[in-house]
Amino acid sequence: MHIHNFSAGPCILPQDVFKQASKSVIDFNGLSILEISHRSKDFVAVMEKAQSLALEHLGLTDMGYKALFLGGGASMQFLMTAYNLLEKKAAYLNTGTWSEKAIKEAKAFGEIIEVASSKDANFNYIPKGYQVPSDADYFHITSNNTIFGTQIKEIPDVNVPLVCDMSSDIFSRQLDFSKFDLIYAGAQKNMGPAGATLVVVKEDLLGKVTRHIPSMLSYATHISKDSMFNTPPVFPVYVSMLTLEWLKNNGGITAIEKVNKEKAALIYNEIDRNELFQGFAAVEDRSNMNATFSLKDTAHKTAFDQLWNAANISGLNGHRSVGGYRASMYNAMPLESVQALVDTMQELERKA
Amino acid sequence: MHIHNFSAGPCILPQDVFKQASKSVIDFNGLSILEISHRSKDFVAVMEKAQSLALEHLGLTDMGYKALFLGGGASMQFLMTAYNLLEKKAAYLNTGTWSEKAIKEAKAFGEIIEVASSKDANFNYIPKGYQVPSDADYFHITSNNTIFGTQIKEIPDVNVPLVCDMSSDIFSRQLDFSKFDLIYAGAQKNMGPAGATLVVVKEDLLGKVTRHIPSMLSYATHISKDSMFNTPPVFPVYVSMLTLEWLKNNGGITAIEKVNKEKAALIYNEIDRNELFQGFAAVEDRSNMNATFSLKDTAHKTAFDQLWNAANISGLNGHRSVGGYRASMYNAMPLESVQALVDTMQELERKA
Repeated sequence: MHIHNFSAGPCILPQDVFKQASKSVIDFNGLSILEISHRSKDFVAVMEKAQSLALEHLGLTDMGYKALFLGGGASMQFLMTAYNLLEKKAAYLNTGTWSEKAIKEAKAFGEIIEVASSKDANFNYIPKGYQVPSDADYFHITSNNTIFGTQIKEIPDVNVPLVCDMSSDIFSRQLDFSKFDLIYAGAQKNMGPAGATLVVVKEDLLGKVTRHIPSMLSYATHISKDSMFNTPPVFPVYVSMLTLEWLKNNGGITAIEKVNKEKAALIYNEIDRNELFQGFAAVEDRSNMNATFSLKDTAHKTAFDQLWNAANISGLNGHRSVGGYRASMYNAMPLESVQALVDTMQELERKA
Repeated sequence: MHIHNFSAGPCILPQDVFKQASKSVIDFNGLSILEISHRSKDFVAVMEKAQSLALEHLGLTDMGYKALFLGGGASMQFLMTAYNLLEKKAAYLNTGTWSEKAIKEAKAFGEIIEVASSKDANFNYIPKGYQVPSDADYFHITSNNTIFGTQIKEIPDVNVPLVCDMSSDIFSRQLDFSKFDLIYAGAQKNMGPAGATLVVVKEDLLGKVTRHIPSMLSYATHISKDSMFNTPPVFPVYVSMLTLEWLKNNGGITAIEKVNKEKAALIYNEIDRNELFQGFAAVEDRSNMNATFSLKDTAHKTAFDQLWNAANISGLNGHRSVGGYRASMYNAMPLESVQALVDTMQELERKA
């Protein structure tokens, strides 16, 4: 029985990717992908392909950017961005838990200006109309807030370098990615399994801070070694490459964005139409990746949970900071899975 | 045709592990192991099992140690050990490239005393008879030197905390592991695929430095969250768990050490017996994991390379710092593969 996996991440990836990855664990040019040297010709080709596909999808090929696949997770990037870029003062937009964690790590390195925050409403909206100090070393935003189900629809125009945690919506929608000076994203949403983090960095952004940067935390180190300064997370990078190839073979970001919009419309229309449910995020800031919603009357909780469990839906429980439900609909999720969820919401309505 | 994989790491792992890992990429309790949440009951059980098996194999269960599986590689531990433990002064034994890298990272945090070095002889031996300052915050050693093929046979008795990079020989031989206060090891030799790093740390070692430690670099943070502070490298941890289970099912360290000694004896006996070859490392310091050797006369190189290539042997080229050949014979390598290599060395002798 097929499971509809609505997990917030690690999350659903394309079935074709699972099949190819499974085969390669047994046989990748004669060896298991798990036992090949990272210095082998075969793996160097995988790394280069993953890097070039990442830049190609973002429209950043030959634009002065480098793509790195690092270990450690996006949480390490909260630290590395500050370590590498923060000399005196940086500006942050606080749109939720992950922004707060980024701010917390950066505070050890300089003055942090929180230009705006939606904490006053449990981060159910994206602040707008804020001012970014023109003397900030950079401005940091979180493009999609997995926990709260909000998404920045319009990327701000600023006069300082723009740094973005794009972990949960990279490769899901078309943007002018050249507006960003540094983008980072944990692989485990739209790109691959847990264990790799993509960093896309404009090279001329670097070399401006005076502090000592430890080798492993230095973007310049990793760039100088083409993302092979130390043994990279071979299998997570390989599966990321497969997923980026899958995206290309399926029309790239433009095509997938269309499907993502359909999926989002399907669930949000039901949340708004069905009297039993209510959305959490401000309508104009709703994420196309993570829909957060709840029952207006928790008396229906047992019945609804039974319905979606019976429909083989998994990963629907909301994050503890918000409660209720969260439907994560990343690139690899088919429209049919969202339809299956909507069906259970309608079934609840009929039974209630 | 089966390939004899002598790669230095990432390297051979048990075939049974490849089979189980491949299956789980398709179906792990109904989902792919690549798409399950790291907070799911199933993965929490994997992480706990991996941690408890690691401690069990080392005989450190209930001895005040914690086992962590982190991302980032052992290279990140060069930094983290210093960040967490170095207040004023630390002592390092320099036995090669990896020791040097550890020393380089630590220097930014305090005074480094290099108690001894074998650099004078391109690290072909392990220095002995050195003194460790009694006021050092810790003493750092590299138990096995993959590149040079040396191994510390006797773990030094010191009066300061003992920190060990055990990346390339952990779980390969029995030691009194309670002598160590902190052990770290990249997974990609005897434990699993690239992308996870095991840290076994005595809890009372921590909390003694006064500097600010960023969250992701703090052992205390990772301990407080049971190695789940951020999304861990799910699949590398899973495969590490499978490999640690395989080790247990095959008699644990005691049983595997016996095989490792047989494999090492087989290759070193041939190196010493065969007039065409010479060993690189000092005899008493020879690694049971990585045998480094070369042809006395490079005129035989083409013939020898053809022979071992024809025998489906791969990964035998030595590291550029040493040249010649390196046969890495980690836990999962069967005696037959070493015999296959010895056969080609004897065939060369007959033909030469």
